[in-house]
Amino acid sequence: MTRPRYSILRRGALVLGCSLLLAGAAWAQEKVVFQVSDADPAKWNLTLNNISNVQKDLGADKVQIEVVAYGPGIGMLKLESPVATRVADAVSKGIQVVACENTLTAQKLVRADMLANISYVPAGVVELMRKQQQGWAYIRP
Amino acid sequence: MTRPRYSILRRGALVLGCSLLLAGAAWAQEKVVFQVSDADPAKWNLTLNNISNVQKDLGADKVQIEVVAYGPGIGMLKLESPVATRVADAVSKGIQVVACENTLTAQKLVRADMLANISYVPAGVVELMRKQQQGWAYIRP
Amino acid sequence: MTRPRYSILRRGALVLGCSLLLAGAAWAQEKVVFQVSDADPAKWNLTLNNISNVQKDLGADKVQIEVVAYGPGIGMLKLESPVATRVADAVSKGIQVVACENTLTAQKLVRADMLANISYVPAGVVELMRKQQQGWAYIRP
Repeated sequence: MTRPRYSILRRGALVLGCSLLLAGAAWAQEKVVFQVSDADPAKWNLTLNNISNVQKDLGADKVQIEVVAYGPGIGMLKLESPVATRVADAVSKGIQVVACENTLTAQKLVRADMLANISYVPAGVVELMRKQQQGWAYIRP
Repeated sequence: MTRPRYSILRRGALVLGCSLLLAGAAWAQEKVVFQVSDADPAKWNLTLNNISNVQKDLGADKVQIEVVAYGPGIGMLKLESPVATRVADAVSKGIQVVACENTLTAQKLVRADMLANISYVPAGVVELMRKQQQGWAYIRP
Repeated sequence: MTRPRYSILRRGALVLGCSLLLAGAAWAQEKVVFQVSDADPAKWNLTLNNISNVQKDLGADKVQIEVVAYGPGIGMLKLESPVATRVADAVSKGIQVVACENTLTAQKLVRADMLANISYVPAGVVELMRKQQQGWAYIRP
């Protein structure tokens, strides 16, 4: 009667072990999400400097970087953004740059008002929560 | 002689498995703590917008939200706060809104100076540390 | 034939259990990293107030605290910093205060321009990422 119970425990331990190894590997890979929520071009440039330093220091292929712009920070990703060229450059270097659709709606913006090659998420704040819960570091420049 | 040792290991694995399941469940539930530390009503409104979007996007019953106001951010929770009505509304929707007692002392404020229905923690920064260590996401608008 | 396999599983469970206990212990110790990235002496003072409150509330020997100054925040750690005395006091109380060398290079600063007793990291942002991945709480005052 005890055998099957032990067997379940052993299988459970194996599944558990594998899950932890996978979780550990996912955690070990460097990942960082940057929040841009200020209407301040100096902050936008600082964020882009930070990203550039992270890629330089860790190796662009060793780290996953995402930038989430929302609220007053959305201006960073508008067509007329003073950092438009730098954003395009970051995207070309593998940075995921995302805009918050809630903010677009609130500010009556459409995708045609925004820089090309960026991505969209329904809610910037929820994206920042999710990334942290998936083990990403969070930087708010 | 080996039997009892295995038995302890099996029991250990069971306890471990259950703990991890509980920890996993606690982690899986969405939780987010917002920091308010600027004396800037625009930031207070942004924080309240963020909270509203999180509840809308995830479902108010699916996410635990706490706001910690401290330092220059304490003005958000004073009686004369320009966002008093919105704070009361957030509390009525299940948001935990807490003020830092260290800040009250430093600014010679008493609870009678503050909005009703908010909660208090001895130290806002320690609260923000604790929540993160319990798996809460951290957003600093 | 099954015996050795079970034995490996048991040993695996033991190793796993020990690793988790160690990881749990490391996590349980309170650790917090503060980011200073604004050129704003009020923020520098707020950060130093926060640190002082954390040490007071948790006990200076119960919590590890690090401050990372980078970008526009580097002024906090320059020789002529208006908070020089408070920084020296924090260092004397066991706080690790670190400056970002990328920022020094960008602003053409050398170590002789900086406060004594502080430490250096190659990249402030990478330091903030690493600490978070090691389970440190992150506070951006």
